[in-house]
Amino acid sequence: MSDILNLLSWRYAAKKMDPAKTVSEHKLAIILESIRLSASSSGLQPYQVLVITDPQIKAQIRPVSWGQSQVTDCSHLLVFAAWDNYSFDRINMMFDLVNEQRGLKNEGWEAYRQQLLSIYPKRTPEENFQHAARQAYIGLGSALIAAAAEGVDSTPMEGFEPEKVDAILNLSALGLRSVLLLPLGYRASEGDWLVDLAKVRRSTEDFVIRR
Amino acid sequence: MSDILNLLSWRYAAKKMDPAKTVSEHKLAIILESIRLSASSSGLQPYQVLVITDPQIKAQIRPVSWGQSQVTDCSHLLVFAAWDNYSFDRINMMFDLVNEQRGLKNEGWEAYRQQLLSIYPKRTPEENFQHAARQAYIGLGSALIAAAAEGVDSTPMEGFEPEKVDAILNLSALGLRSVLLLPLGYRASEGDWLVDLAKVRRSTEDFVIRR
Repeated sequence: MSDILNLLSWRYAAKKMDPAKTVSEHKLAIILESIRLSASSSGLQPYQVLVITDPQIKAQIRPVSWGQSQVTDCSHLLVFAAWDNYSFDRINMMFDLVNEQRGLKNEGWEAYRQQLLSIYPKRTPEENFQHAARQAYIGLGSALIAAAAEGVDSTPMEGFEPEKVDAILNLSALGLRSVLLLPLGYRASEGDWLVDLAKVRRSTEDFVIRR
Repeated sequence: MSDILNLLSWRYAAKKMDPAKTVSEHKLAIILESIRLSASSSGLQPYQVLVITDPQIKAQIRPVSWGQSQVTDCSHLLVFAAWDNYSFDRINMMFDLVNEQRGLKNEGWEAYRQQLLSIYPKRTPEENFQHAARQAYIGLGSALIAAAAEGVDSTPMEGFEPEKVDAILNLSALGLRSVLLLPLGYRASEGDWLVDLAKVRRSTEDFVIRR
């Protein structure tokens, strides 16, 4: 079994975290970097990650997250927030950055920019947001493995009221909408009903279809 | 830098693959297992992975995938296909499997089953599909890292006509809709315009917001 599979087997959605334990800045940086380096559609990286450590903000988010204790007990609360739309400015920002960092302009790449500029901005904001939101899930996939590699527990959460989290964090001013929460911390095993239960997945025979 | 970050830095969306090179069954199994073990909302695993090796099927998919050569040149074409809806049967299937594998019934878990049964089946199929589709992106995040760990190149693709891929693979009969393609194989560096160009991401300062 490869390391990756060991990490995926080790991790689980911690249901209770120890509020006395803090994730080091070094480990946090690795987890954030795994998200930043993740693939995204056309390389647009259409989301940002908020790192919440302020106890008052966590306390505001907990009641709009079904009261889940990890929101306040965690060391760092990550909020994946997707672009609320694909605008000309955002697309151009990313293509310009690519040109700047690669130190070249490429005809095919510029044609691709024009293609995206002709397609995305005329879609509805909701359609664009849904597309952007999906990309955040790739980053989540990386973060779960990176956290496990660092021995950090995490709990991916969709169970929260996005509009209320957006309001608490004033995300609309940034053109963002919250998509996922990911508390990072250390499990408090004695209070966690899930910690000793087997991870259950459908069998490979059920999950994979060969053609 | 951790291993995970090295893997994420190494990988890129290969633009040209060598049709003469085959990914071993051992490496393929690790990549598929990384997807199978990935997190998903409520653990429902609301998608399946098709592994296409039949050259005729690949040849049918290529023209409805913007003619991208990796679709036919790859060793194995993975198709992530999400549930077209959350039904009572599907939700019960997964909760029953959990009970069976854990060898216990848990009151909290059964209450959670009832909660999902009261929410998901009455949503529109489209809303449920969109939610299921997002989960496939977590599996993609794992697969990209697992492939890199095995030295296998991959190219995540949204650029295809899903309805046509669904028709080619007869996915509607399985209650599935295609979401992502992931050709696996080995780069043909001499024909790949992207292979030597820098990976570009927004800076950590731009990507991460601390609160």
